[in-house]
Amino acid sequence: MSAEGGPFPNRTGPGSGAEEPVRIGLLGRGTVGGAFHDLIGQRADAIAEMTGRRPEISGVLRRSEGDFDAIIGDSEIVIELMGGTEPARDYVLRALQAGRHVVSANKQLIAQHGDELFEAAREAGVQLRFEAAVAGVVPVIRVIQESLAATEITKVFGIVNGTTNFILSEMAATGASYEDVLARAQDLGYAEADPTEDVNGADAAAKMAILARLAFHAPVNLDDAAYEGIEEIQPDDLAYAKELGLSLKLLGIAERIDGGLSVRVFPCFLYRRHPLAPVEGPFNAVMVEAPTITEITMSGPGAGGQETATAVLGDVVSIISGRAPVHAARASLKIVRDIASSFYLHLEVADRPGVLASIADVLGRNEVSVRSVVQRGHGDDARLVMVMHEGPEARFHAALEEIATLDFLRASPRAIRVIEEEFV
Amino acid sequence: MSAEGGPFPNRTGPGSGAEEPVRIGLLGRGTVGGAFHDLIGQRADAIAEMTGRRPEISGVLRRSEGDFDAIIGDSEIVIELMGGTEPARDYVLRALQAGRHVVSANKQLIAQHGDELFEAAREAGVQLRFEAAVAGVVPVIRVIQESLAATEITKVFGIVNGTTNFILSEMAATGASYEDVLARAQDLGYAEADPTEDVNGADAAAKMAILARLAFHAPVNLDDAAYEGIEEIQPDDLAYAKELGLSLKLLGIAERIDGGLSVRVFPCFLYRRHPLAPVEGPFNAVMVEAPTITEITMSGPGAGGQETATAVLGDVVSIISGRAPVHAARASLKIVRDIASSFYLHLEVADRPGVLASIADVLGRNEVSVRSVVQRGHGDDARLVMVMHEGPEARFHAALEEIATLDFLRASPRAIRVIEEEFV
Repeated sequence: MSAEGGPFPNRTGPGSGAEEPVRIGLLGRGTVGGAFHDLIGQRADAIAEMTGRRPEISGVLRRSEGDFDAIIGDSEIVIELMGGTEPARDYVLRALQAGRHVVSANKQLIAQHGDELFEAAREAGVQLRFEAAVAGVVPVIRVIQESLAATEITKVFGIVNGTTNFILSEMAATGASYEDVLARAQDLGYAEADPTEDVNGADAAAKMAILARLAFHAPVNLDDAAYEGIEEIQPDDLAYAKELGLSLKLLGIAERIDGGLSVRVFPCFLYRRHPLAPVEGPFNAVMVEAPTITEITMSGPGAGGQETATAVLGDVVSIISGRAPVHAARASLKIVRDIASSFYLHLEVADRPGVLASIADVLGRNEVSVRSVVQRGHGDDARLVMVMHEGPEARFHAALEEIATLDFLRASPRAIRVIEEEFV
Repeated sequence: MSAEGGPFPNRTGPGSGAEEPVRIGLLGRGTVGGAFHDLIGQRADAIAEMTGRRPEISGVLRRSEGDFDAIIGDSEIVIELMGGTEPARDYVLRALQAGRHVVSANKQLIAQHGDELFEAAREAGVQLRFEAAVAGVVPVIRVIQESLAATEITKVFGIVNGTTNFILSEMAATGASYEDVLARAQDLGYAEADPTEDVNGADAAAKMAILARLAFHAPVNLDDAAYEGIEEIQPDDLAYAKELGLSLKLLGIAERIDGGLSVRVFPCFLYRRHPLAPVEGPFNAVMVEAPTITEITMSGPGAGGQETATAVLGDVVSIISGRAPVHAARASLKIVRDIASSFYLHLEVADRPGVLASIADVLGRNEVSVRSVVQRGHGDDARLVMVMHEGPEARFHAALEEIATLDFLRASPRAIRVIEEEFV
């Protein structure tokens, strides 16, 4: 262990320059891989000065070139930037088993195969680090695993997908449709050619599963995370939101609840004074709550080649300097599925007597309590926007199912959650 | 080195329970000391499970009881929560020299005696950690020292004094005077009986000196940090600010500039979309900028017994698990004192012809360029509020000195900086 107390170099000898290199094998050479390669070139001197060891790239595995066994044979640390689960899982597992420390930016890999990979790292006595897998360069993983290692975290939540946050920000700002803004996001490089995993919430769910695992020291699997996406959001919803002083975000929440835990992702209205309400564009932001910390909020760019490469480099420096995160094992926590929520409900109905009474009757029978109603006529039709008091989601969904069958409905009902907690 | 890869315990043996204790000596038993004592009691099991070692308090030094030599003789880690520089400096130095790791929450100690203490820690091969010294439980120290260890940080800035942020938030919300709000802050426990160090900016300057040292790997002393306080802020200034869509904060900035660095603290108007503008009450928030990270923002409670104790405990767990922050030594950076700033200028003048021309003449001769002017009559007097374009502070101050001598002035001129950068 190298124990340093202050801003002084940890040189291998006076005059230095004779640092033992740290050889790094790079799997994948896309945007992040390229940025990481450049960054190592720029910062090798500074890292050598800090740690006494100079990082250098020993080999790169591209789709069309490079030999995995040769790279692993010549590396102390393996950086996985390939994405996807195979062959990334196979390579990372073999690297760990061969006694190599691994840094990965691959959220699907960690969320789906975390148990197996953590076990392999533990058995081999090496580190597996993955700061870049969640919220890019925003240091949520390190803060949860290290600063708050001994803190009983009750809730982690936030905006962990930049693509959807960009789309929702643009829809709110311009009034444009989901389809138009998605096309723009693709042009700008904020959305992939196939944006499915981002817009349907699966990407955010994988990240929240990782955060839940680390915050609650419980083996959380991808299936434990429920998710909804933003594909059904209409410009209408955002127009009403603006009137009501609300801001629409795709929110991920992992929380202890009723002695168990809940992990879920859904689009959600936030009141204007909520700390996450001002987070716009492709930025990410994560809040951590515990009785002993009140709340900590961290925000910054959730993606970007240089930003992600910087997060990877932070992990590399921690490995070089011999630090490892600690983890606690606890009894596994039950996944709680019936959550209490407040809902916004948007209905297009025929404008005739008895309609509101019928809807109120369905809500009442399902014990869903209405907080506010706005009704507006549009020719023969009316638009009814209701906000409910908080209550069990199951009851609201039962009511919604019944409402969807009413014959005076002109379009499918739309429901979006509302976070109404008051913040400082 | 203990190398762990995942959420599994680092047990000393199967079945555990036989963990070797880590003995902790506590210097000071005020609010934070009491909270830390309680927290260790609550979290000892979890820490034992994580690290294989159970923390326990071996002794407490109070003003009236306890023997420092006995405590140090019986501890592996010493926690300094006494505050002030003496005898804290003497105790911490002796603890480090005796080979004890030290955790301190004492910003004045680190800012004034950092060089000496870091050197003692380095010589003894022990850790000196101090997350709680800046921004309480907001993990700015760890993020700068560990996540961003290899990142060339260009700027660290933010709100690092909760007392003044509470006072400015309250003045803005209520229109009350500085004196009235300060009295209220004292009643609520947000301000000390003697609030001098908080309100004059000295506390924030000490914290910014620590952040500058860590971010730029340069020996920054307390004298290198220029500071101004909030004692002269008038309700008037906040009323104008509200009209102009500005928010007033006591801002600390440490930045690389012209090949050197600048560390300064001053009250400052922020545009409403600035990420620090919504930070209200006793909260702290720090932003870190570098070309490779864009910007990261971290916020949360800057004080509080439990919150500060949680930050101390995070440092303790890092020490137990054998991690040490790394530091780089660099050429020392020159302190740059002449900064370019934009100013708001508030003048009360006699309402007679030629007044504006005289002031404009002074500003023009000093090459200070005016961006906007609002003039309002009040009987025989007029109030003139001007916002300048950005320019060297020395020129503005030269102009201000000259303006202060003009015979038609009815009160001392008041100048406050304005941050006008546009953010995402």
